[in-house]
Amino acid sequence: MAHIALGVEETQFPGITGPLIYRPETAKPLMELAEVLLRGPHSLSPGERELIAAYVSGLNDCRFCRDSHSATAAAQLELGMCVVEQVHADLDNAPISPKLRALLRIAGAVQVSGRNVTPALISDARRAGSTDLEIHDAVLIAAAFCMFNRYVDGLGTVAPSDPQAYAYSAKHLVERGYSN
Amino acid sequence: MAHIALGVEETQFPGITGPLIYRPETAKPLMELAEVLLRGPHSLSPGERELIAAYVSGLNDCRFCRDSHSATAAAQLELGMCVVEQVHADLDNAPISPKLRALLRIAGAVQVSGRNVTPALISDARRAGSTDLEIHDAVLIAAAFCMFNRYVDGLGTVAPSDPQAYAYSAKHLVERGYSN
Repeated sequence: MAHIALGVEETQFPGITGPLIYRPETAKPLMELAEVLLRGPHSLSPGERELIAAYVSGLNDCRFCRDSHSATAAAQLELGMCVVEQVHADLDNAPISPKLRALLRIAGAVQVSGRNVTPALISDARRAGSTDLEIHDAVLIAAAFCMFNRYVDGLGTVAPSDPQAYAYSAKHLVERGYSN
Repeated sequence: MAHIALGVEETQFPGITGPLIYRPETAKPLMELAEVLLRGPHSLSPGERELIAAYVSGLNDCRFCRDSHSATAAAQLELGMCVVEQVHADLDNAPISPKLRALLRIAGAVQVSGRNVTPALISDARRAGSTDLEIHDAVLIAAAFCMFNRYVDGLGTVAPSDPQAYAYSAKHLVERGYSN
């Protein structure tokens, strides 16, 4: 059970959904941020950006965010859950582009501390073809999930154990996005 | 110099201000979130909420955010910078209310991981008079500054060394807020 009374049936509104209903004033900018970062017009596909969110959530050990963004990434990537699981398990050898791997390494540094992003990580990303905007957004997606993960777990919300729950919510997110 | 070309004179637009100008699509929800959390109608004063932001930024060792939110807290708290410095140096003995101290302890746990927020920290906050909304917002302010700090440092932005720069920006924020 969550640390505060969210005013919803928590098994029906797991993870971040309860706190979003509880406090609509903060839910609005939070979901607008997720929509721009993960689904707005971009040279990185929605699946690639969801993969950054899922990877950081895995590093933060936030089960709800890791499983829900893994499912949403998988639903939008050609290799599906197979590639998502490989990124979680072994980033160095996962079957992704060198550019995405370099951006995920930047995201992994941000997860520890912004000060861990070194000039070497940035020049590796550039050599792999990343633009400034892609580097900016990889940093901000990673930073934002350091927030979302702490929000979800800091309030002690419930994470479903059934993978079907995440697959269902992924379908909804792919079709309708974060702001609706 | 920042890791990417922000398109601004960085000494004039230090810390988060350069990235906000660089990417207005993400700046909008980011600043709306800061405005609601730190200045919206609330039972905690803006100075108390800025103090939570400053404290977490100090724990994350983000100089720009720590110094700018410390100055903004000090400008709105009766004891000014004296109490802000005591909170950074020794939370247990700083001259603040038991309620604010308990909320700052929750914020300090969130800074490490959302999973570090224990039922004991929550019940201490409740015993000191915290409402559910105050606990919710303390968690989300702390989580949000784990994002802002990583955004500012992850892009390698410049932090002014002159305290006057932060005092000037604090005056502007107190008068005009984050969204304008």
